[in-house]
Amino acid sequence: MKIVFLGTSGSTPTKQRNLPSVALEYNGEILLFDCGEGTQRQVMQNSLNISKINKIFISHMHGDHVIGVAGLIRTFALNNREKPLYIFVPEGEEKKINALLTFDKIKFDYPIIVKEAKTGVIDKNKDYIIKAFRLKHSVPTCGFIFKELNRLRFYKNKCMSYGIKGTMFAELKEKGFININKNIKNKNKGKRINLKDVTYEVKGKMIVYATDTRPFINTVTAAKNADLLIHESTYANDNENLAKERMHSTALEAALIAKKANCKKLALLHISSRYHSIDTMKKEAKKIFKNTIIPNDGDILEI
Amino acid sequence: MKIVFLGTSGSTPTKQRNLPSVALEYNGEILLFDCGEGTQRQVMQNSLNISKINKIFISHMHGDHVIGVAGLIRTFALNNREKPLYIFVPEGEEKKINALLTFDKIKFDYPIIVKEAKTGVIDKNKDYIIKAFRLKHSVPTCGFIFKELNRLRFYKNKCMSYGIKGTMFAELKEKGFININKNIKNKNKGKRINLKDVTYEVKGKMIVYATDTRPFINTVTAAKNADLLIHESTYANDNENLAKERMHSTALEAALIAKKANCKKLALLHISSRYHSIDTMKKEAKKIFKNTIIPNDGDILEI
Repeated sequence: MKIVFLGTSGSTPTKQRNLPSVALEYNGEILLFDCGEGTQRQVMQNSLNISKINKIFISHMHGDHVIGVAGLIRTFALNNREKPLYIFVPEGEEKKINALLTFDKIKFDYPIIVKEAKTGVIDKNKDYIIKAFRLKHSVPTCGFIFKELNRLRFYKNKCMSYGIKGTMFAELKEKGFININKNIKNKNKGKRINLKDVTYEVKGKMIVYATDTRPFINTVTAAKNADLLIHESTYANDNENLAKERMHSTALEAALIAKKANCKKLALLHISSRYHSIDTMKKEAKKIFKNTIIPNDGDILEI
Repeated sequence: MKIVFLGTSGSTPTKQRNLPSVALEYNGEILLFDCGEGTQRQVMQNSLNISKINKIFISHMHGDHVIGVAGLIRTFALNNREKPLYIFVPEGEEKKINALLTFDKIKFDYPIIVKEAKTGVIDKNKDYIIKAFRLKHSVPTCGFIFKELNRLRFYKNKCMSYGIKGTMFAELKEKGFININKNIKNKNKGKRINLKDVTYEVKGKMIVYATDTRPFINTVTAAKNADLLIHESTYANDNENLAKERMHSTALEAALIAKKANCKKLALLHISSRYHSIDTMKKEAKKIFKNTIIPNDGDILEI
């Protein structure tokens, strides 16, 4: 799967960084995590197909994380979108998002389905589940877990040696076993092959998105062994007190979360516009958690 | 005065063009005409001082012209703005703009004053007046006239020869005349000098902003002899019918307005995202009105 950091600034944009949004492209669809002002243009400028956006997960209703939805849904309308768009917001915030979406009393010709994200599973399909968990910020805020389901893969050589081919794979998957035809010329003829004899499991990837928040035990629990934790890092150590006061995190605090959760990789975003260089932040985080990156807008991660 | 084309696209942004907004920098303040999504970042990227924005003139409440206000006013709040911000919207649209501004029930610490723009003078100070006029679009839409007031300039040499200097200029301006001191050694001693004897008038510049609209007689009247007409040009001739249907203008239609109004210069914006090249549009407009430009985002005009 492909993760594109569309916007990596916090609170206000800068010349270099747009407001928060992360795109996760998976199996032909795009999931957006947050949608700050200007996100639709960031999608275009990163050559993503805007019509693939099916679901938007809004962490909280502060303007810098959500105003972009208003423009995006109007562009969908102009593009004659028909398929539904799902927008998840923290519990109790449905009224606010609706006020933003239809400030001008516009009626949309495609379904826009707003859902309040309670703690736990909020969305699933055959490939993945999405869970929400509560973060610690000045307003109701959700973190999100994208968990790809474990997948079965066939041992190619084993299958070949049993003479399994064509539609037999589907039959095997469906029934859990298959009887090899008695009439074929094969030492395995008539044998019953179980699914588990010819398959192995590939562990699904896990990505956790946590912004805006103070460093919080919930995030450690949610991000346990995650392949990637995307965590806010509004400040460096020099503004540790401001981070506390404004319910944000420093780079170091985010790194501690990644370490405690035994994550494989940490990506920091929501960088305050006061920092013209991220060198200090990177240094402070890497001292605690080596595999830390601070992406620029447009940076791509393949997970 | 300086005009910066912050966003020149229509309806949806493109890789090259952001949504509509034009900044007019005059005498230490910035007036914004329309404020599409992403305008605050365009302001930053064009190195304008965002805190100088005092007044925003919204042509109509279609999302592409107004959504940027929501982000801008939050950035002002984060910057601890204290001075008031004036937002002008077409008559009857106050509720809609308020729904957008405070979708999240935020309270601002500085005054945001929304005014409905009736036809006629909507704002004035010692340097300029702003008038609104009605355009012809699918929703209530205003055009805006920025009219710099005529200014008096002193003939330097004449003033010198009469011995006018220092505080005498202010006195002359205030009273309309001045009596030259009887005691000075000058052939003009004791003489009464009238203001008009030592001054000439410099005509103020006039700029007219007209988008979105069908070509409309009101615009011709409003833009009579304007130094600059900024007019929408969503389509080229190939989409003449679409322009009619969707209540927009072609480049040629905009050029005809500029010609009839005897404008000095025409700038086209609100270019549909379907046009990857503006060459045809430019050609069609220039055939009618030679002094036509189609600015790119970030282009600057000194008037």
